Amino acid sequence: MEVHPYSPKDLNLPGFVPNFLSASTILGVFAAASIFVLAVSWILPGLFSKATKFEKLLICWFTFTGLIHMVVEGYFVFSPDFYKDKTGFYFAEIWKEYSKGDSRYASYDSAVVSVELVTCVVMGPACLLAAYAIAAQKSYRYVLQLFVSLGQFYGLVIYYITAILEGDHFSASPLYYYAYYIGANSPWGLIPFLIIIRCWRKICESEGRNKRKRQ
Amino acid sequence: MEVHPYSPKDLNLPGFVPNFLSASTILGVFAAASIFVLAVSWILPGLFSKATKFEKLLICWFTFTGLIHMVVEGYFVFSPDFYKDKTGFYFAEIWKEYSKGDSRYASYDSAVVSVELVTCVVMGPACLLAAYAIAAQKSYRYVLQLFVSLGQFYGLVIYYITAILEGDHFSASPLYYYAYYIGANSPWGLIPFLIIIRCWRKICESEGRNKRKRQ
Repeated sequence: MEVHPYSPKDLNLPGFVPNFLSASTILGVFAAASIFVLAVSWILPGLFSKATKFEKLLICWFTFTGLIHMVVEGYFVFSPDFYKDKTGFYFAEIWKEYSKGDSRYASYDSAVVSVELVTCVVMGPACLLAAYAIAAQKSYRYVLQLFVSLGQFYGLVIYYITAILEGDHFSASPLYYYAYYIGANSPWGLIPFLIIIRCWRKICESEGRNKRKRQ
Repeated sequence: MEVHPYSPKDLNLPGFVPNFLSASTILGVFAAASIFVLAVSWILPGLFSKATKFEKLLICWFTFTGLIHMVVEGYFVFSPDFYKDKTGFYFAEIWKEYSKGDSRYASYDSAVVSVELVTCVVMGPACLLAAYAIAAQKSYRYVLQLFVSLGQFYGLVIYYITAILEGDHFSASPLYYYAYYIGANSPWGLIPFLIIIRCWRKICESEGRNKRKRQ
């Protein structure tokens, strides 16, 4: 059995190759790329649309999360052997590192892969469309944001419940548990939840106004 | 190892007790109960609300599916040992029979249980609320139907993708595969999909009308 840093220790990962990059390098590159994406998605809509500051924040969020779904999570879904990568390829490095917080990525657990597949193929493009819909003030902008945020939230719920049912023993240490498994996922619990509430209200208000008009 | 009728044959189910009721008895009771629920949910709104025929059909659907989620699927979620039942209890009989189409119920597979947990605890009550919201013409009726139908559809997608990723070998025979695993689930693919499209359009139309009014 290969030696690996993941939990449980008896997880069989033949051909495992350790990280080439340090955690701080991986996180630093991720942070820099995120800042670049957020800056561009903050500035661009200001040039072409009448989006308010709050709407520009939403555009930033949907662009950021959409690209993560399609690029970072997309790489994982279609690269079950990422843990064998010998080239130091950045996306393989990310998932080797994140697997310390949840080894179900390294073991290509079917529940995790199912959620990630829906997330990268459906939610990723839908996020970018939501960013466009907000900038262009399309009439489907609220229902699309609700669709995406419900999908993200449901995916996170399944992600956590499956782990709990299987004993919640997939983190290499409490640090990785709280930093990666809980911390890194927390924006996808909080922000979609807030967007769901906002869109729900907007849709009900709109329907309520039309109802009064009809009466 | 106990002898059981499920696939794969090497699935370990210590203490398994075979069905007491025949498949036709189980399905007959289910059909009779369904007809009763559908008839009551068709007649009741006609007495108390101005729901159209189409809305009454939706009320029937949401009452029917909500009760299945809460009662039948609720029993499964909180009865991991149903396959050991020696009393011929009807809900245990249902799941012993359905497991011939998908043994992940008998083995209490974590992905299946996660989806069923969300379905019975969240979607079940939300379905009954949706039936009420349609009858009472509440302004949240479309967004709630969309919420429920998206949740049902997402759950079904995860249900099938996890099975495919694990080899799709959980049916005792092609008959059980097509009758139970595909056939019995097909309404929860088709009907939520149609309701999602309808509610999406209704919400966009409502938002479009308000946009024109503002301009």
